[in-house]
Amino acid sequence: MVKQDRAIRTRRAILEAAAAVFDEKGYRAAKLSDILERVNLTKGALYFHFSGKEALANAVLDAQVSETPVPCAQACKMQEYVDMGLLFARLLVSDPLLRASVRLSLEQVPEINRNSPYEQWVGRTTRVLTEAKERGEVLLHVDPEETARITVGAFSGVNSMVSTMVPRLDLEREVSVLYRHLLAGIVVPSVLMHLDVDPGRGARVLAEAGLKPASL
Amino acid sequence: MVKQDRAIRTRRAILEAAAAVFDEKGYRAAKLSDILERVNLTKGALYFHFSGKEALANAVLDAQVSETPVPCAQACKMQEYVDMGLLFARLLVSDPLLRASVRLSLEQVPEINRNSPYEQWVGRTTRVLTEAKERGEVLLHVDPEETARITVGAFSGVNSMVSTMVPRLDLEREVSVLYRHLLAGIVVPSVLMHLDVDPGRGARVLAEAGLKPASL
Repeated sequence: MVKQDRAIRTRRAILEAAAAVFDEKGYRAAKLSDILERVNLTKGALYFHFSGKEALANAVLDAQVSETPVPCAQACKMQEYVDMGLLFARLLVSDPLLRASVRLSLEQVPEINRNSPYEQWVGRTTRVLTEAKERGEVLLHVDPEETARITVGAFSGVNSMVSTMVPRLDLEREVSVLYRHLLAGIVVPSVLMHLDVDPGRGARVLAEAGLKPASL
Repeated sequence: MVKQDRAIRTRRAILEAAAAVFDEKGYRAAKLSDILERVNLTKGALYFHFSGKEALANAVLDAQVSETPVPCAQACKMQEYVDMGLLFARLLVSDPLLRASVRLSLEQVPEINRNSPYEQWVGRTTRVLTEAKERGEVLLHVDPEETARITVGAFSGVNSMVSTMVPRLDLEREVSVLYRHLLAGIVVPSVLMHLDVDPGRGARVLAEAGLKPASL
């Protein structure tokens, strides 16, 4: 059990080091030796966890969804839809691994599955919207998968914009504004007025979600 | 006059070649010699137009806005807001220079002004939304600059998602869906019902805008 814990910690340390190196140098220029040096491990120890640079990049990409906890259940399903976005915004501000993962998914590298995080986010969002629709929380014309796709695409674009614009914008505030814009076209008015889309919502959801493991 | 025309054509040919090389290799790996070879010019001829790789990259970035025509005036200002987005989506499908410019703006290169296209798009969009607000076409709580920022960020994210997802999605369709989602939170209902947000709108606007030069 102790051994297993250590293996999990080592794996996470390797992922964080790889994310930092990919972030600093880009995928192509990043070398395994840079990652090993940063994490202070031998090549053999790294190969015990990952088959190489490509596998590392794909694991960093996957961490974006698998390391993001699922927000706690709420009385209203559409609050969970909002919470997913604001929680992820909160985590992007505080977690370098997730931030590097998002940046990696914008690099043009054919060897890595850049579409995988999109697909996983769209899947998670579609499931919440489908349930919200069954409960009558969303407008009749809403197609859950279509709305999920637009939400994920728009979120990722707002995130890139925030990190590019000078002076840098406040991600949690911009994501809150994005959701306020989207929700009027998705949610029935009686639900809309009860949703908490405050920029500080992400931090509160994170505290609530503390105990719940990430799962797909 | 003929000389000037030729200079304009040469400048455009250099920009297109630079865009193609940046797109293929990324900014860092791209070499001036690759660009010269593609456009069949001497170093001296290139330096007559651009001071080097950095200037070329910034010119490719600027082309994203300066080469995109302003849609024709419409009876309703919010139709112009929609037209800007659908026209740009149409152009991104057909113009490799614009597509490369957008990709370049996602690269992490401190030497180039990646924020410049964002700022220019946000400026153009803010002006249209401000006029629409003066005319009473948008909801009272709408802050033109905030909504412009969200529109530009969301658009760029949907565009990245479309080119990443496998199978590739249809950009004009996804942008149409994005605008349908955003508009309900921006426009007063009496204007909303008259807006044309059809995916084919971009091609029609392009035909109409044919004679109008791009200007900021």
